[in-house]
Formats: sequence, structure tokens, C-alpha cells
Amino acid sequence: MSEDKQLTREEHVEKIRELIKDSNIALLTTVTPDGLETRPMMTQEVEFDGDLWFFSLKDSAKVTEIKENPAVNVGYVHKNKSFVSIRGLAEVVEDDEKKEELWNKAYEAVFDVDAKDPSLLLLKVMVQSVEYWESGSIVKSAFNVARKLLIKDSETDLGTNATVELDV
Amino acid sequence: MSEDKQLTREEHVEKIRELIKDSNIALLTTVTPDGLETRPMMTQEVEFDGDLWFFSLKDSAKVTEIKENPAVNVGYVHKNKSFVSIRGLAEVVEDDEKKEELWNKAYEAVFDVDAKDPSLLLLKVMVQSVEYWESGSIVKSAFNVARKLLIKDSETDLGTNATVELDV
Repeated sequence: MSEDKQLTREEHVEKIRELIKDSNIALLTTVTPDGLETRPMMTQEVEFDGDLWFFSLKDSAKVTEIKENPAVNVGYVHKNKSFVSIRGLAEVVEDDEKKEELWNKAYEAVFDVDAKDPSLLLLKVMVQSVEYWESGSIVKSAFNVARKLLIKDSETDLGTNATVELDV
Repeated sequence: MSEDKQLTREEHVEKIRELIKDSNIALLTTVTPDGLETRPMMTQEVEFDGDLWFFSLKDSAKVTEIKENPAVNVGYVHKNKSFVSIRGLAEVVEDDEKKEELWNKAYEAVFDVDAKDPSLLLLKVMVQSVEYWESGSIVKSAFNVARKLLIKDSETDLGTNATVELDV
């Protein structure tokens, strides 16, 4: 598999969108005081446009963990064969308008509240690098589709708009 | 789902064995200088008996990462529905006898060497806690099958026999 550093930002976003679009579960790993914890998260119906978004209960342990250490990995498995690994920085976002935009009825059954409920917030993951393994391949043949175009070492930029940062 | 603190060590090992036995791929997350990276790993045919084992090339980045920071998570997906998350501490083991014991022909195709090849080593993961989500459930209903019985905060014990530590 060749490493293509010449893709535009839009092509990188499109590539990531294709890689993750069929996954309704993402595996979110955070750094906790005890070590690394991974849990399944519901994905969005809204297409990927540069950031990953997840709903979370405000009092969830992962909210505290992300505030302490924003380093996360988001994994996507396809039919237990291919695998996408996204390294990123997460932040907690409390934005009712964004919650409404991303909300769908399936969440009501899961969280037992509606989008406006203050017990819910959003986790936004700024993508730093993407690696993926093709179906059936276990040898590391991934390439970084985004490392060159997406910003790195950007802890200090967490408060700004990651979509703009993708253009850096 | 109830939390059962009364299971014996053997019952915990059996529970974990059942949870992971059908997975031929495990998702190993390590702490890297850039953040959290996850990659698929081939699992063993040998049944789980208290530690997780993986083959790795000696010059793989994850070997360096684990030596720097032994905190790992090992995830197992079953048919893209249920998910098992194991938090643990990894160490690098160079033991030809153990390599022979765990080796199977499938690895030859992947690594293009035999078990005795010095470019191969083993990663041993001492299990600290196990959480799992039943098929189709995304709400965190996991319970820790092992947290009470398996040793925690054991960085200083990495060189000793984790099987014995399981009895603590």
C-alpha cells in the first residue's frame, strides 16, 4: 500500500468518511488513572466532516478522563475483519445546537432523555492520524492517510475550530 | 447484570476464556509519544490461562512503547456486536520455549520466519480488569469480572509470575 501525501484535506476527509461510514459502533480508548480503558460508543448518522462526535452522559468517567488527558484512540471494526484506528484529541463540548443536529431517535432509547437534556454532552475528537488494516490482513500494512495534513501536537488548540486546523 | 465478587480465581480465568475464545483478532492499544495507538493482533490457539500472549517483531514500535509505558488495553470484538475490554500491563518476554509452545503455522505466513527466529519476541499482558458489553448493548452494563481478584497497581511486579499474582 503506498503512502499518499498528496491528498487534499477534502480527499482525506472523504477517505476517512468511507472507512468509517458503515460502523455503528466505535471503540473509544481513554487514559484513566488505572491504565487504558476502552468502551463501545454509538456512532452518528451524520457523515464525518473532519471531527468525530459522540454523545456521553455528563457524569460518565470518560468525561473526567478526557478533561485530565485528551489523548484518545477511536477504533472501528468492520465485520470483524478490517480495522480502522484513529488517534486523536478529545474535548468535552456542551452545545445544545450541535446536540440537536447530531441527535437521532436511537439515542432516546439508550440515554432515556432527549437531546436538550443537560445530563448529556458531546465528545468531539479531533483526528490526528488514521491507520487502517484491510480486510483479513493482520500484518501492519496501514498507511497514515492524514498525518501530514492534520495538525499534530495541538493540545493548545483544543478550544479552536478543528475544521480550520485541518487546513494547516 | 450483577457484580460477582465471590468468584474464585479459576472461575475468573474460565469466564475470561469464554469471553475471548472465539476472537482471532485482538485490538492492542498502547501509549505512544504522540498519543494512543491501536492495532490488530493475531490471537493464540492456546487457551487463556491467566495471561494474554502475542507475537511481535522485535523492532516493532509497540515493543519500545510497552517498555516505556506498560499500560495497555486489549479489546475483543465478536461479530461486531459484543465487546470485551481488558485493561492490563504488558511486558516483553524473550523465551524460546514459550515461543515454541504458542507458535502455530499461521504465524509463519504472517511473520515469514519460524518460532525460533530472534527477530520475534512475545508480549505478555497481565490482566488487571475485564469489562464486557453483551451483544447489541451499547449502554455500559459491564461488570468487572476480575478487578477484585487480579492484582492492581503492580508495575513493580512485572518481572514476577502473574499467574501467582492472580491468587492475591
